[in-house]
Amino acid sequence: MSSMIGNNIKLSVFGESHGEAIGCVIDGLPAGTELDFDKINSEMARRAPGRDKASTPRKEADAPEIISGILDGKTTGAPLAVIIRNSNTKSGDYKNLEAVVRPSHSDYPAFVKFGGNNDIRGGGHFSARLTAPIVFAGAIAKQLLAEKGITLGAHIKRIGSVSDEGFDYNNISAELLSALSSKSFSVINESAQERMRAEIEKYRLEGNSVGGEIECAAIGLPVGIGGNIFDTVEGKISSFVFGVPAVKGIQFGLGFGFAQQNGAAVNDGYEIKDGKVSLISNNNGGVLGGMTSGAPIVFSVAMKPTPSIATPQKSVNLKTMQNEELVINGRHDPCVAVRAVPVIEAAAALAILDLMM
Amino acid sequence: MSSMIGNNIKLSVFGESHGEAIGCVIDGLPAGTELDFDKINSEMARRAPGRDKASTPRKEADAPEIISGILDGKTTGAPLAVIIRNSNTKSGDYKNLEAVVRPSHSDYPAFVKFGGNNDIRGGGHFSARLTAPIVFAGAIAKQLLAEKGITLGAHIKRIGSVSDEGFDYNNISAELLSALSSKSFSVINESAQERMRAEIEKYRLEGNSVGGEIECAAIGLPVGIGGNIFDTVEGKISSFVFGVPAVKGIQFGLGFGFAQQNGAAVNDGYEIKDGKVSLISNNNGGVLGGMTSGAPIVFSVAMKPTPSIATPQKSVNLKTMQNEELVINGRHDPCVAVRAVPVIEAAAALAILDLMM
Amino acid sequence: MSSMIGNNIKLSVFGESHGEAIGCVIDGLPAGTELDFDKINSEMARRAPGRDKASTPRKEADAPEIISGILDGKTTGAPLAVIIRNSNTKSGDYKNLEAVVRPSHSDYPAFVKFGGNNDIRGGGHFSARLTAPIVFAGAIAKQLLAEKGITLGAHIKRIGSVSDEGFDYNNISAELLSALSSKSFSVINESAQERMRAEIEKYRLEGNSVGGEIECAAIGLPVGIGGNIFDTVEGKISSFVFGVPAVKGIQFGLGFGFAQQNGAAVNDGYEIKDGKVSLISNNNGGVLGGMTSGAPIVFSVAMKPTPSIATPQKSVNLKTMQNEELVINGRHDPCVAVRAVPVIEAAAALAILDLMM
Amino acid sequence: MSSMIGNNIKLSVFGESHGEAIGCVIDGLPAGTELDFDKINSEMARRAPGRDKASTPRKEADAPEIISGILDGKTTGAPLAVIIRNSNTKSGDYKNLEAVVRPSHSDYPAFVKFGGNNDIRGGGHFSARLTAPIVFAGAIAKQLLAEKGITLGAHIKRIGSVSDEGFDYNNISAELLSALSSKSFSVINESAQERMRAEIEKYRLEGNSVGGEIECAAIGLPVGIGGNIFDTVEGKISSFVFGVPAVKGIQFGLGFGFAQQNGAAVNDGYEIKDGKVSLISNNNGGVLGGMTSGAPIVFSVAMKPTPSIATPQKSVNLKTMQNEELVINGRHDPCVAVRAVPVIEAAAALAILDLMM
Repeated sequence: MSSMIGNNIKLSVFGESHGEAIGCVIDGLPAGTELDFDKINSEMARRAPGRDKASTPRKEADAPEIISGILDGKTTGAPLAVIIRNSNTKSGDYKNLEAVVRPSHSDYPAFVKFGGNNDIRGGGHFSARLTAPIVFAGAIAKQLLAEKGITLGAHIKRIGSVSDEGFDYNNISAELLSALSSKSFSVINESAQERMRAEIEKYRLEGNSVGGEIECAAIGLPVGIGGNIFDTVEGKISSFVFGVPAVKGIQFGLGFGFAQQNGAAVNDGYEIKDGKVSLISNNNGGVLGGMTSGAPIVFSVAMKPTPSIATPQKSVNLKTMQNEELVINGRHDPCVAVRAVPVIEAAAALAILDLMM
Repeated sequence: MSSMIGNNIKLSVFGESHGEAIGCVIDGLPAGTELDFDKINSEMARRAPGRDKASTPRKEADAPEIISGILDGKTTGAPLAVIIRNSNTKSGDYKNLEAVVRPSHSDYPAFVKFGGNNDIRGGGHFSARLTAPIVFAGAIAKQLLAEKGITLGAHIKRIGSVSDEGFDYNNISAELLSALSSKSFSVINESAQERMRAEIEKYRLEGNSVGGEIECAAIGLPVGIGGNIFDTVEGKISSFVFGVPAVKGIQFGLGFGFAQQNGAAVNDGYEIKDGKVSLISNNNGGVLGGMTSGAPIVFSVAMKPTPSIATPQKSVNLKTMQNEELVINGRHDPCVAVRAVPVIEAAAALAILDLMM
Repeated sequence: MSSMIGNNIKLSVFGESHGEAIGCVIDGLPAGTELDFDKINSEMARRAPGRDKASTPRKEADAPEIISGILDGKTTGAPLAVIIRNSNTKSGDYKNLEAVVRPSHSDYPAFVKFGGNNDIRGGGHFSARLTAPIVFAGAIAKQLLAEKGITLGAHIKRIGSVSDEGFDYNNISAELLSALSSKSFSVINESAQERMRAEIEKYRLEGNSVGGEIECAAIGLPVGIGGNIFDTVEGKISSFVFGVPAVKGIQFGLGFGFAQQNGAAVNDGYEIKDGKVSLISNNNGGVLGGMTSGAPIVFSVAMKPTPSIATPQKSVNLKTMQNEELVINGRHDPCVAVRAVPVIEAAAALAILDLMM
Repeated sequence: MSSMIGNNIKLSVFGESHGEAIGCVIDGLPAGTELDFDKINSEMARRAPGRDKASTPRKEADAPEIISGILDGKTTGAPLAVIIRNSNTKSGDYKNLEAVVRPSHSDYPAFVKFGGNNDIRGGGHFSARLTAPIVFAGAIAKQLLAEKGITLGAHIKRIGSVSDEGFDYNNISAELLSALSSKSFSVINESAQERMRAEIEKYRLEGNSVGGEIECAAIGLPVGIGGNIFDTVEGKISSFVFGVPAVKGIQFGLGFGFAQQNGAAVNDGYEIKDGKVSLISNNNGGVLGGMTSGAPIVFSVAMKPTPSIATPQKSVNLKTMQNEELVINGRHDPCVAVRAVPVIEAAAALAILDLMM
């Protein structure tokens, strides 16, 4: 198992949901960058639970405690380590927890992999709470990218049967992306928000959950970043994005839509515009031959419904090896896609920064 | 740019379409494995062009020449290097080639990235011909996986408007996968083949191309392979699969279908079966919390239509910096998805082997 | 800059001497290992300053605070993170510190590399204090190695003009290594201790420092670990050991002694002993062709004299760009080799564990 | 086992002494670099055997055959692959070779590691012949370093009892390094050559071999390259240099000499010279805190005597498990240090280039 990733910017994520703390180490940050902690905290707040009914009512302080790598508000060039205390770790005698594995969670394979030694309280190291340090690291990556003229942002493209109209691939502005990346419920068309909230509330009331799709874009990258075969922009972003729990698919530009299309309709032609080579369309989502094409990078990810639901489910007890019905009580996000928006942005920002350094 | 991948089985791919040869180095293979060269050659033949109208009529010998790592038909434990000669490299004076970039190809970003120094003949290092050594390496990976009881195979799930009925996720047999992985036109339902061929022929006759979707499955993996955050099965397979040209998306299990679903409907419950923990459904495509669940690994990839089409396209001339219409003549696969099946299988086999070692 | 190392056991070290804390993340530890914290603390104590005149009189608590990866005293399989608070970080207004670079320290290249943004208090990230988390990680590695029947230990082979008789390469017992690795002043022949202490005291009294050599051995490794070219045991151990400040050389077996020798005299012959292949001598220090030979691994490292000395030194002021004489007051180890013994053992244990997993 | 190394410039070495060919893949070279093949061939010739009595009289053509990555004499930016044919691979029925392991060679651990499946003819993948592709890659690295104003060269510092006066650490000129790196018998003081040749001849005539020490320097690196802990210049160079067979130790600057020294005597002071910060001495061999100090990088390596000697040696037969005396006939370098000079230069050039990219 490896919680470490990156070639130039290396990220090491650690912690367990009910342990002492969670956190990360970021190595490779340039020295002397003045960090905007208000922005970092605002990113952390976007991910934090407890804000409204679309999310879990649990409260988590999520206050990052800087251990190293920052002095007088600036990066020192040494590894930046941060921890976030787990405030509510009184979890009773977890040893008496029923050994009934939660469907669609990591419980069963984790039990096998770790021989029952892993910390199962709240999902342990597999908890979505581990995305908090990723958001922290991503907030720093965003600031470094902004210095290079790169802006990124994401919106909820779909929740269940409700969709938000997507990006106009060839006309994505920095303003739009900045606006999206500061929203707590990120949609392009505000009208979609109420319909999405209603969709989520419908599933919440029935003790159920619902899936979603998040679409993310980045503009301002130079042409020719990345490479082919095993150094593609698509592969790099994927390797970071699949680190986010509940992600089950990723597509660039038209993605799976390409399967039903023909070349004449979807090839991205070129034209000279203001004396420069410009793409007429951007069905490839800003990546050609594994490299940035100059058009905005656009990708979307599929998020599965929150596995923890109050609806009774068929499961098994690993101790008794008997079938057992499971009802998961507790406070769980009925739709992870809402709070996952800043996490996907963070993963993308880290991947792009790693490509750019 | 890096053509190297893998942690335990390391693969280094090299070569340019019209250079001396293409090939690869595979490091980390166990010593003493007797290789079945008939099977390797049959995999190479599945990918090779020139077999029928669904593929390009170009002929390529694609005969692998072993440089090192094999003695008396067995692996020696040293790096296995192989080259495949480029037989038809008389490409005239390529310097006079028009500098008109082909839409949806790597031409433009590669020109910027390499300052015009890259070998553009036939796409150079970006040519899909580079998938031949990946298929070679994958054929070896498949044999090593077979020794561990793991079988994999893929089928064409969709070409344009024609689809092949997918896997029954919970009932995938080794026989089916073996059969698929020996077909040259890989479909589960043979009836789909003629309809797909007709779809491709329709586009070919109009000088156009068509996209497709390939679905791949692997059975026999133990529970608990992989890990969470940056060591997920999904991330590992993706990082190999995006090395295949024209892949624009990947999804595991229901994938993007999750976005429209609710937890109660798609959570994968458990039951005791023959005294063992068993999954009742497999919407997660065999991966939970980034680890293998014991159910078959199932994923599908989106392939874009072949960018090279005879239909006139808008482009630009990088020398004159003028708009210019481009008609691409020559022999090109009207649908890359057909010959890409063994390549996707190979990429998956290499990724899974890297996880297993 | 990268503070991360390892392929199978990954170590990420962070922290600055006068920052909030120092620490590390260890990823890849097997789940379910019961850790002996008494042993870990005793290793930490061997490295800790303030014990006697041979070391600095500074007091550091060095109490490791487990953040994650351990539950009920056992590893959980998740990344193990630990921090060690910097107790005495009131360092005044460091901005007024003289910009006079300390000779033979990292000050000058670090200033250039980080543009003056690095934390210079106490050497910052370059402080030898960063070896505390390495010792912590190494103590865990030693326990895992012990479970595999591998024991290691080191002794001070030389300090200035005083030497401790070295290992009998072919007759190193687990008892000897265990004894050495629990000593605070580690010598094979206790008589050497007083002479070494006297040597150190001599230099201390004159405001000077002295270099040393540490020799380390490991027994119990199976034959054939490691590999050739870029996977040698020598290369692996070196890459970890040069992470220890003040190390300026490493040699295996006879090492530099080989340069004056002839093959007939130093080749390590074989014999059958108790029905097994056995080495008659071990001039190669347990490594042949980059692989373990079955004989004990033996290597030694050169440690330079502590750069911080009270003797006036020629230096420059980076602000005024004038020559300036520098006298370094404060409490510094007059010989780093004494406290470095457990650090070298730790680095070797981590390297060997990484090779073994 | 891994034959791959590097972070920015990745090198993959393959081949077996009596297989089809040996070679390497170099990934990460910038596009558009015009290569000087005369220089590359001259480096290859320095390493090639058969020139005089100090080396083996075997003839090897060692003509590199470019497979990819070069077009019209310039790098294309794609992986550069090269193979060197093994011209004389008629090795008879090697299966009847005596199973008597050669002392101080890789034979015994390789047999255990690979279960007897490795290619033992001529040492297989462990043959020093594998240094030919390293020299090829290093020759390219030298050209890229020269474009950055960096020059490196090495000399034979010692063979047995004969030494060549070393570098004046603070006064190493590009002219001297260039001159050294074009010599076939590389010494600073030509008078040492005859004495060294006599020393070698003495051991050759008695069917014996002799060890040596090679010292290498590089000038022109900017200040602050590398980093501390696991990214040191020392660790990086070591990890490449231990890839060269027969290397058993490495030291930077004074190296093991530090152990007998005091800080006041060996600390490297600073002075302002021509308005710039300058080191007064260079006992640290150009590296401080793991980073380049601006002074020349100087390191030396210990090479053991050629293990293959005609003198009878004690060994064992792995088939009969009996003691057996071994006399190794054939043509072997009586001193590997002579031909290893360009290999050490190559390894250092590759390591430094990897640090610089």
